[in-house]
Amino acid sequence: MFKARITVTLRPSILDPQGKASHHALTELGFTSISSVRIGKFIEMDIAAGSVDAARAQAEEACTKLLANQVMEDFHIDIDEIVST
Amino acid sequence: MFKARITVTLRPSILDPQGKASHHALTELGFTSISSVRIGKFIEMDIAAGSVDAARAQAEEACTKLLANQVMEDFHIDIDEIVST
Repeated sequence: MFKARITVTLRPSILDPQGKASHHALTELGFTSISSVRIGKFIEMDIAAGSVDAARAQAEEACTKLLANQVMEDFHIDIDEIVST
Repeated sequence: MFKARITVTLRPSILDPQGKASHHALTELGFTSISSVRIGKFIEMDIAAGSVDAARAQAEEACTKLLANQVMEDFHIDIDEIVST
């Protein structure tokens, strides 16, 4: 069993109103040293697969087909094996 | 300058309808080996600070005050130095 941790982020050229609003709110709260706030999605899932590569392939296909909109978004996948003790 | 990468996830005891819906959709698409889908937020920000520790402190305060609802959510912060070339 593998745990996939996936981040889906807006491509740099795409405007991010949610990030802009958060940045504005942070500035109002006094966080003046924080800039370039961008907000994306974080997805965790368990994958039953025979190998890390097979799990990664499943996660990639899930991102391509459903979880990410590749016109506007990039995704990054980390796979860890779940060791049951 | 430092880059903070923050994941905000629902606590394990909190129901995640968005994750449930995604899991259902993935199952319908044939991804039967995927389970336990949970969806959170991913936040990237640049922080002007003198050290990694100072940048982490800023990011933690931003999460506590604005970005995460600690009643329902946990957050995890990774800090990397941005090396300008």
